[in-house]
Amino acid sequence: VNIELINTGTELMLGRVLNSHQQWLCRQLADLGHVVTRQVAVADTGGDIRQAVGEALARADLVITTGGLGPTSDDITRDLIAQLLGKKLRQDARVLAQIEKLFAQRKSRMPESVRVQALVPEGAMVLPNPNGTAPGLAIEVRPNPFRESGKRSWLILLPGPPRELRPMFLDFVVPLLRREFPQENPFVCRTLRTSGIGESMVQEAIEAPLRQLVAVGLELGYCARVGQVDVRLAARTNDAEKLVGDAEKMVRARLGEKIYAAGDDEIEAVIVRLLTGRKQTLAVAESCTGGCIAHRLTSVPGASAVFLAGLVTYSNEAKQKFLGVRAETLARHGAVSETVAREMAEGARNQTQADYALAVTGIAGPAGGTAEKPVGTVFIGLAGASGTSVEQKLNPFERETFKQVTAQQVLEILRRAIRG
Amino acid sequence: VNIELINTGTELMLGRVLNSHQQWLCRQLADLGHVVTRQVAVADTGGDIRQAVGEALARADLVITTGGLGPTSDDITRDLIAQLLGKKLRQDARVLAQIEKLFAQRKSRMPESVRVQALVPEGAMVLPNPNGTAPGLAIEVRPNPFRESGKRSWLILLPGPPRELRPMFLDFVVPLLRREFPQENPFVCRTLRTSGIGESMVQEAIEAPLRQLVAVGLELGYCARVGQVDVRLAARTNDAEKLVGDAEKMVRARLGEKIYAAGDDEIEAVIVRLLTGRKQTLAVAESCTGGCIAHRLTSVPGASAVFLAGLVTYSNEAKQKFLGVRAETLARHGAVSETVAREMAEGARNQTQADYALAVTGIAGPAGGTAEKPVGTVFIGLAGASGTSVEQKLNPFERETFKQVTAQQVLEILRRAIRG
Repeated sequence: VNIELINTGTELMLGRVLNSHQQWLCRQLADLGHVVTRQVAVADTGGDIRQAVGEALARADLVITTGGLGPTSDDITRDLIAQLLGKKLRQDARVLAQIEKLFAQRKSRMPESVRVQALVPEGAMVLPNPNGTAPGLAIEVRPNPFRESGKRSWLILLPGPPRELRPMFLDFVVPLLRREFPQENPFVCRTLRTSGIGESMVQEAIEAPLRQLVAVGLELGYCARVGQVDVRLAARTNDAEKLVGDAEKMVRARLGEKIYAAGDDEIEAVIVRLLTGRKQTLAVAESCTGGCIAHRLTSVPGASAVFLAGLVTYSNEAKQKFLGVRAETLARHGAVSETVAREMAEGARNQTQADYALAVTGIAGPAGGTAEKPVGTVFIGLAGASGTSVEQKLNPFERETFKQVTAQQVLEILRRAIRG
Repeated sequence: VNIELINTGTELMLGRVLNSHQQWLCRQLADLGHVVTRQVAVADTGGDIRQAVGEALARADLVITTGGLGPTSDDITRDLIAQLLGKKLRQDARVLAQIEKLFAQRKSRMPESVRVQALVPEGAMVLPNPNGTAPGLAIEVRPNPFRESGKRSWLILLPGPPRELRPMFLDFVVPLLRREFPQENPFVCRTLRTSGIGESMVQEAIEAPLRQLVAVGLELGYCARVGQVDVRLAARTNDAEKLVGDAEKMVRARLGEKIYAAGDDEIEAVIVRLLTGRKQTLAVAESCTGGCIAHRLTSVPGASAVFLAGLVTYSNEAKQKFLGVRAETLARHGAVSETVAREMAEGARNQTQADYALAVTGIAGPAGGTAEKPVGTVFIGLAGASGTSVEQKLNPFERETFKQVTAQQVLEILRRAIRG
């Protein structure tokens, strides 16, 4: 099955908004065993959308568009597609009733412009939208005038807001795909996430031993991310599960403890699972990461079983008040120092009685660096039953990367400590 | 200037990684007055990359690719482009020396595979990479065999890791673009961010008054985001600045306080600026948002001047210990209650002596809801010099959206309070 994805939106082309649909939809399709061949983004202009959809219908069995179904003047996808396929638009009474109901529930007046969202190209299937006003549309283009063979394509139009698109895809598009594009061979894909080793070293360690498996259908990929390298093992043969399983064993034999997760787990999810299994608890004292570590940990469902508290002690007063860091230590060593990291970790552990307490203090920048402690300097403390340790790192990156890289290092230090 | 962007990477098509290049590069180009016409993503397979690059060279004056320049076996872009353009690859001694230096600095052995990154297609300009091993490449395709007219195109190849790509773009691609594609008319684009009003109501309020300006070249766009709607005003006429300025005045007259920012500012940046101007300080007590609010605030450069502390009090014990919430209140009303939100806010203010203290407690889900307090229930407290108020909200979304929507509401409540 040849699948293409088209994201429409001038805000995408002006870089005003992050395109999160691409990853989400590609991932959902991959989990169903389908791989998107091409993804395209164009502005909300007639010519661009028409050209992109026409080209996609010429190549693909399934074309999915996102955006352009709303009530404003730059929402033009519905109209354009109807024109392109030579279909009339008719008002759908059920869709209109649904929209009216939504406004009534919100107790707000319904603007006239909203009614266009009840227009449906003839022959199109309506995909209900319980989370918004614009329904999705599914159209079987048959015969397909864009293909020489005339072979049919499915064209699916989804609304732009993620919290409308996602449930609609899961509830209505997935069943349609299972029916129209049943899969013979399973698609198995496993990602092994490593940290503390470079991309070329990872390849050197595993490429030769995997060569035989690649020869019989294993697909091998690498992705270098912030402070880590992902190894991707995939197969779509009829013994895909075994092939990927054998490959995973080989990679694990070579990379061992460098692998911190298999699958999509971020390191925070690994930690929540490790601590939950051991019935242990955690507190975090953050200065330069400013809540990033707490935010990542608490984004893991079930985090409340292990995460007791996060103390974002940005000011010196807060470090003293909530963590018991001594004024003398701050005056003598400065807030960014090994000693303060140590006192922060121990203070957080004492205050919360957690099994582990992490602490991080550093200079995120852009301002605040000195010759001795340049921007990017970080001290990471870990207090546990067996004592306290502090590591120093240098992460001279812009503010957001600095926070994420540092958070990754802090969590990796904890992971290694838990694993002993 | 017609510009196309091609992102390569099988991990993108499998939905394993978010494509952050699209937004970043589109934004940088827009700031230079260029708009990307089309963005395409394809897997790391020869046929797909070749087809995408060939098609783009047929249409565009500037084609930028990302990814596929690294040392691993799935990094094939450099080779493919050389083939496609009929150019030989030669080893560049300076690039090789740079790579060897990098490994020497890291005190690690250089794997053989890394040497391919020193291969350069003949006639290509090398874009140095101080943050990694793979240099970028810039090729003037002249004459251009993919265009009937033969008109030249520039083809620029950038490495995949964002922290290598971004400085390379700023330091080496921007000067090249300024030289090769000078802009006659400025491109002016301003985004007005609103909250607390729906997309169709925004349009109803402003579309008619703006009609005259649209007739003379104003480009008007809308983007519905989580809990907010962006209005985009743009122009590329020779009086673009005035046109956009006039449009902004009209929109402000209609939407007034619903507009919380002009430009790219997120609400946290607005708050840091407001508090800095007033020399006031802030503390945050978070339960269900788990550090998300502190993380957002501390991602704003200069936040340390106003943000004193964030208390992520996930457990009841932490709420008592760090905020002084009474055990009796927790027992009687439950942790998710108006009274606890009030005591959290007042406790955070008392403990830190901040001018304002925000508190939020709620049920993020997926578990923990009851009939009386379903998943998504949130209480938001704000304590200030003039007293304490608590608002209740219902945000029945999945965990990450829940955190972000709730954080947005909490910050908006503070913004309105500061503005009086």
